[in-house]
Amino acid sequence: MIVPQTNLPRVVVVGGGFGGLHLVKELSKTNNFQIVMLDKHNYHTFQPLLYQVSTSGLEPDSIAYPLRKTIINTPNTYFRLAQVETVDARHKTLKTNKGSINFDYLVIATGSKTNYFGNENIAKHAMFMKTVPQALNIRSLILENLEQAIITSNLEKRKSLLNFVIVGGGPTGVELCGALAELKRGVIPKDYPDMNMDEMQIHLLEGADRVLPPMSKKASKDAQIFLENLGVQIHLETLVKDYDGKQVITNNSLRLETDTLIWSAGVTGNPIPGLGDEVLVKGNRYKVNHFNQIEGHESIFAIGDIAQMSAEGYENGHPMVAQPAIQQGEHLAKNLVNLVKAKTLIPFKYRDKGTMATIGRNKAVVDLKKGSFSGFFAWLVWMFVHLWFLVGFRNRIVTFFNWVYAYISFDKAARLIIRPFKSVKK
Amino acid sequence: MIVPQTNLPRVVVVGGGFGGLHLVKELSKTNNFQIVMLDKHNYHTFQPLLYQVSTSGLEPDSIAYPLRKTIINTPNTYFRLAQVETVDARHKTLKTNKGSINFDYLVIATGSKTNYFGNENIAKHAMFMKTVPQALNIRSLILENLEQAIITSNLEKRKSLLNFVIVGGGPTGVELCGALAELKRGVIPKDYPDMNMDEMQIHLLEGADRVLPPMSKKASKDAQIFLENLGVQIHLETLVKDYDGKQVITNNSLRLETDTLIWSAGVTGNPIPGLGDEVLVKGNRYKVNHFNQIEGHESIFAIGDIAQMSAEGYENGHPMVAQPAIQQGEHLAKNLVNLVKAKTLIPFKYRDKGTMATIGRNKAVVDLKKGSFSGFFAWLVWMFVHLWFLVGFRNRIVTFFNWVYAYISFDKAARLIIRPFKSVKK
Repeated sequence: MIVPQTNLPRVVVVGGGFGGLHLVKELSKTNNFQIVMLDKHNYHTFQPLLYQVSTSGLEPDSIAYPLRKTIINTPNTYFRLAQVETVDARHKTLKTNKGSINFDYLVIATGSKTNYFGNENIAKHAMFMKTVPQALNIRSLILENLEQAIITSNLEKRKSLLNFVIVGGGPTGVELCGALAELKRGVIPKDYPDMNMDEMQIHLLEGADRVLPPMSKKASKDAQIFLENLGVQIHLETLVKDYDGKQVITNNSLRLETDTLIWSAGVTGNPIPGLGDEVLVKGNRYKVNHFNQIEGHESIFAIGDIAQMSAEGYENGHPMVAQPAIQQGEHLAKNLVNLVKAKTLIPFKYRDKGTMATIGRNKAVVDLKKGSFSGFFAWLVWMFVHLWFLVGFRNRIVTFFNWVYAYISFDKAARLIIRPFKSVKK
Repeated sequence: MIVPQTNLPRVVVVGGGFGGLHLVKELSKTNNFQIVMLDKHNYHTFQPLLYQVSTSGLEPDSIAYPLRKTIINTPNTYFRLAQVETVDARHKTLKTNKGSINFDYLVIATGSKTNYFGNENIAKHAMFMKTVPQALNIRSLILENLEQAIITSNLEKRKSLLNFVIVGGGPTGVELCGALAELKRGVIPKDYPDMNMDEMQIHLLEGADRVLPPMSKKASKDAQIFLENLGVQIHLETLVKDYDGKQVITNNSLRLETDTLIWSAGVTGNPIPGLGDEVLVKGNRYKVNHFNQIEGHESIFAIGDIAQMSAEGYENGHPMVAQPAIQQGEHLAKNLVNLVKAKTLIPFKYRDKGTMATIGRNKAVVDLKKGSFSGFFAWLVWMFVHLWFLVGFRNRIVTFFNWVYAYISFDKAARLIIRPFKSVKK
């Protein structure tokens, strides 16, 4: 792989998610390194809003941001579009599908991928929502199923097309259910005046005894009420055992016929082969120390979802969400400078800024250290925080415009089947 | 295919392009018919701006409009997502991939498709730009080639990746060249500071002795100067004979090595099989009378690109652009009402509103009946007219915002490889 040669130590960062992006941003200010960012996509994905791409609320350009644009005017910083294959710690080399590259320091920020718990049927038949193309596939499938239902005379078939089953009651599943329920209320009856809307059902399946299990009990309770008021059918303590593309089998008596199962039941780390299994812990995450160094490797770091740092209150690592990744990225930038200047490394300390989820129009739940609240004000906070963390001024404006437009018009503009999922799948 | 039964005569409209859309809009106001619009896409495509999707300026939701949204709150009007296969005039039946449908009146508004003049090599290796997915493929390929070039050490290979060849100097080819040349000036040097920009070349090949052959000589001359000032290499009286995915062979001594050949050299009608070859004329268009009736069929009509109506000054039919389609659609709506009310049909008369093309920032050429003009004012006119004809208030706002943003920032926001073209192609 061609990268200009310099006398600076080279930091290779694998992954342009929240962790990698914030690390590179901070590090490129220091002029102490040559930085090479690698990613298999040429854009950063703002994953918290993927569900809005799936439900026709936003186009990819609102939540995806060109990675090259993040390093414009930063000297000694390079981006290469490549899929990393293996790492060789002894020779400090990374093998990619676009050739090899040497590093002095390596930061693995490869994030997480969908966990289907080894069930190949789920992997084959369920829809996932971790990337922009996956989110667009869900959008296409929802719209294709509506179009198919309107010309289907067989009632059972029609119901299966109009049955939407979301597995996993975390923020992703809850927000997706809320958005789907709003489509059912607002756009779909107008678009399909000849459709019997009672035939469209939205089911949320969650293994725990409440939705949003990582949040407070108040948040769970309020979210459940919001969802039920929107007509979402919630099935708690329900685990999916199997899905053959037609019928969902669960651990209890619940059976659901559906053409659309969306799987947001969990994630697992996305490590790079080569460092051996001994550095991985449960959930396929790298075991790192308080400086994000992978056990036994002084020059190889992991940050974000892929890193498991045990700390007080976080014995099994920090939550696999944006905030720990951002904070670790920014922190590691400082420590890398300390490292080359032979200064003492500073241990990472996570500042919990709270958790939140929105459930459609005017409704959200927010947990802060100081307490929980929900409803309209929580929804305003949710919007503000998400706009704030979106990368780039333009993306904030476009997203804000789309939200204002949708709020006033009760409309979702991007209900476009650009690449039919069913015909692509064939 | 399920469509509610009524006592009203049924008009089936095939195609939701400019012609079909404007016909349905007018006709649905009259309450004289049950209207069924069919399209293989669930959206209307504003084809004049497809090249901006290809060059990362706009996302699909700016120029595509959900067809169902165009018929919200119009009674007795239905949309069905279907690919029409054949027409049976005797039984007044249309066969589609979603079942059959009867009609009392049929309007064929299927438009045109890319004409590669029977050259299978071109069909296989060239890029086309008639649909949104095709435009997105071009966008991905351009960005993928830039990413590949930056890691390619072989000079010949790199030049081939950075050589962009556009075939056809009509408005589409000219506008695409202008947009590419602006990318080369503005975004690419910033995104790829380690790229030698001289290695990126843009070639425009045109068979006639001037670009924009359907326009005035003044427009052609001005457009050529604008393009050359932007660094586009224009090759006139040059016809592409072959392209194997690597080398372009022309009718003269010109040979070009390129990974990217974009074909905008012509269109041909897209008729529905079943009416026999005798109703088709040169260019695969239906021969229609002044009421848009297809020869020999009182209840079957064709409008827009697919219709060839001979008229004074238009012996070979009207130009295959938006205006004749829009006007014929609106006119036919009135004539269909006349038909069921047993009134006299009114012959169609085309009002030429002029032609225009833009060549990047502040530059356009406009031909009106009263004369031609070019430059900054022409560019303002071009923008205003395109915003005006975009379907839907929201699309106008989003497009306008993107244009203002791009104008101020010299940036193109949507440079995202969402679905890599090369890996999809495999």
